[in-house]
Amino acid sequence: MVYITRRVTFSAAHRLHNPELSDEENRQIYGLCNNPMGHGHNYVVEVTVHGEPSLRDGMIIDLGELNDVIQDRIIKHVDHKFLNHQVDFLEGVIPTAENLSIKFWERLKDALPRGELYEIRVSESENNSAFYRGE
Amino acid sequence: MVYITRRVTFSAAHRLHNPELSDEENRQIYGLCNNPMGHGHNYVVEVTVHGEPSLRDGMIIDLGELNDVIQDRIIKHVDHKFLNHQVDFLEGVIPTAENLSIKFWERLKDALPRGELYEIRVSESENNSAFYRGE
Amino acid sequence: MVYITRRVTFSAAHRLHNPELSDEENRQIYGLCNNPMGHGHNYVVEVTVHGEPSLRDGMIIDLGELNDVIQDRIIKHVDHKFLNHQVDFLEGVIPTAENLSIKFWERLKDALPRGELYEIRVSESENNSAFYRGE
Amino acid sequence: MVYITRRVTFSAAHRLHNPELSDEENRQIYGLCNNPMGHGHNYVVEVTVHGEPSLRDGMIIDLGELNDVIQDRIIKHVDHKFLNHQVDFLEGVIPTAENLSIKFWERLKDALPRGELYEIRVSESENNSAFYRGE
Amino acid sequence: MVYITRRVTFSAAHRLHNPELSDEENRQIYGLCNNPMGHGHNYVVEVTVHGEPSLRDGMIIDLGELNDVIQDRIIKHVDHKFLNHQVDFLEGVIPTAENLSIKFWERLKDALPRGELYEIRVSESENNSAFYRGE
Amino acid sequence: MVYITRRVTFSAAHRLHNPELSDEENRQIYGLCNNPMGHGHNYVVEVTVHGEPSLRDGMIIDLGELNDVIQDRIIKHVDHKFLNHQVDFLEGVIPTAENLSIKFWERLKDALPRGELYEIRVSESENNSAFYRGE
Repeated sequence: MVYITRRVTFSAAHRLHNPELSDEENRQIYGLCNNPMGHGHNYVVEVTVHGEPSLRDGMIIDLGELNDVIQDRIIKHVDHKFLNHQVDFLEGVIPTAENLSIKFWERLKDALPRGELYEIRVSESENNSAFYRGE
Repeated sequence: MVYITRRVTFSAAHRLHNPELSDEENRQIYGLCNNPMGHGHNYVVEVTVHGEPSLRDGMIIDLGELNDVIQDRIIKHVDHKFLNHQVDFLEGVIPTAENLSIKFWERLKDALPRGELYEIRVSESENNSAFYRGE
Repeated sequence: MVYITRRVTFSAAHRLHNPELSDEENRQIYGLCNNPMGHGHNYVVEVTVHGEPSLRDGMIIDLGELNDVIQDRIIKHVDHKFLNHQVDFLEGVIPTAENLSIKFWERLKDALPRGELYEIRVSESENNSAFYRGE
Repeated sequence: MVYITRRVTFSAAHRLHNPELSDEENRQIYGLCNNPMGHGHNYVVEVTVHGEPSLRDGMIIDLGELNDVIQDRIIKHVDHKFLNHQVDFLEGVIPTAENLSIKFWERLKDALPRGELYEIRVSESENNSAFYRGE
Repeated sequence: MVYITRRVTFSAAHRLHNPELSDEENRQIYGLCNNPMGHGHNYVVEVTVHGEPSLRDGMIIDLGELNDVIQDRIIKHVDHKFLNHQVDFLEGVIPTAENLSIKFWERLKDALPRGELYEIRVSESENNSAFYRGE
Repeated sequence: MVYITRRVTFSAAHRLHNPELSDEENRQIYGLCNNPMGHGHNYVVEVTVHGEPSLRDGMIIDLGELNDVIQDRIIKHVDHKFLNHQVDFLEGVIPTAENLSIKFWERLKDALPRGELYEIRVSESENNSAFYRGE
């Protein structure tokens, strides 16, 4: 069992806001991150897949193919978007790093041509990140 | 003459858009960056000041004081904001990295307690940055 | 179960030295790191907490609150200090990265307002780090 | 149980190629990476060892000693080499990051003076890495 | 006058070798870097262009267009190649970082649709880089 | 004229303190950095040399030789030391990043076997650095 990680990036705007709470409650919980016009990040997504390297090509999954799947299932939907309103699979989701890691997992787990998804890490900044392992 | 650089970061949303052009022209020029709801970045700002280190304290400018000025004149106005609409000193400015570096320079050049401003570098991402030296 | 990581930094001096061994033994074990006047590092501390994101705010723990706890329980005690002599909770501890990760764990494990501590990683330099998971 | 990680780097050329397949098949599988003259990387190797810190020196393993073993067992054999043809222990191995992590594991697992090998991560570039834990 | 920098990467093999010197002289000058089968790097190229931001789009040069020119004039010729033998414009050039920065300058200086080339920096590794400004 | 940069690191303790001022004045100027037992950093030193690449070897200066000179003239004197008291050439110098960049320049400017010293940058942390060009 070997693990392989592909790192990709995208830029997006988001707003931390729960529409089921009052504006006052949202401001208390999220502070600056609740700005109605949003703020943004250069997100880093690290996708780790595990499996046994094939004898034929020495790979768990071709990193080019893995990249294509990540682009197709995740990046092209979120890059240069406002995450709260412009992404189908984030509809009704508060776009914290925690929730993004879960939603990105759901987008990828059945889409890999080879190997099995092990972890998705989403970094919002050099200091803040979240990761999910399907547990 | 010695140079000293302080690096600070902020997160913001922006949209590349010239309101004097048609929507069609804006889309042609800016592509994805023209998304009306905006996208965002973790911006890195590197401010370089030059001068002669004082004999009393060995500094051109105290890095803590320099940080305070940068926070006060720039960061608190742009952090967690939508740059096109929520920042007084960016009113009417297309918020490219080029233009941000010029505007940040104007905000700082007469505000330093010691030393002289030499350069401001604004990085939008690990691949894209602009810098201005008041030339 | 999702994991969230907050990265913080501090600068400190330390000396690798076991007072129960002779000076000669200390020099043999630690080499340059045994210099009686100490040397120093920009330490990086990465704290990982796990739990289930709340439906109310989409978070395991608010990253701002997590930062406050780390500052209060760890950073304000060690930043700009000589770790061997100026930190109560490191009294009698040889300040290797291994031991720092254990002691920082003890300082945080019962202090988190939400979530459960999963891992503390302490990096002394870009090449050397240690982590502890309470095992 | 504490974990300690040492990061080292080396530069090498390699070619992704399975000599048991036809040239055409190799080109289809590996694309540009199949270039007969090879291409190269600045590899980063992160070796993680776990164990209990000794009461005598506060360490699982001395990072200097760990570095010496990594240099002796791995780096001096692969640094500035063409990995497909100039490394005994890679003879007959397709030098993907996956396979390198397994082979480096085999070179180190019985060579550590203290502690137990936990993980070896091999990064080919800032976007691509593999790791192996002996599972 | 504002400056804008685009960072791109490529992976290649090379060998430091002057065919007009004896093998013995080459080994003395270049040591490990003279290995006949070559070694390799993840190269980082940072291209800086200067000019006045246009009033129409706020840019010196569109970063996407700049990227396209760099890919077309430089990267597609050197990526995943052996630099000594597979690159037309490096024929007869010892591929040190110094010489690469000069040759990449020549490839770009008349190819920019807008702005003027100011500097090309070529980094071979995290510790070694060269830059050229056409002086 | 081409420029080449070598990056090296060292770890040291220091204290910002001017012995000609009162303790009270020192505390006011330097705050936490005035701690009598010192604090420390992982310093990064970037040395830039310029000149014309030789036709014989394609180099301004061999990066290995440049590294040797930097180790010999600077690093071995400051690594794992307390900069205020254990370094001959820093005697009587307040060890700010500004002053270190000047003193390191003086140690190197006449010691290079080839090329001419252009700049020395000393980084104390990821946010703070100084550089000197002999102006």
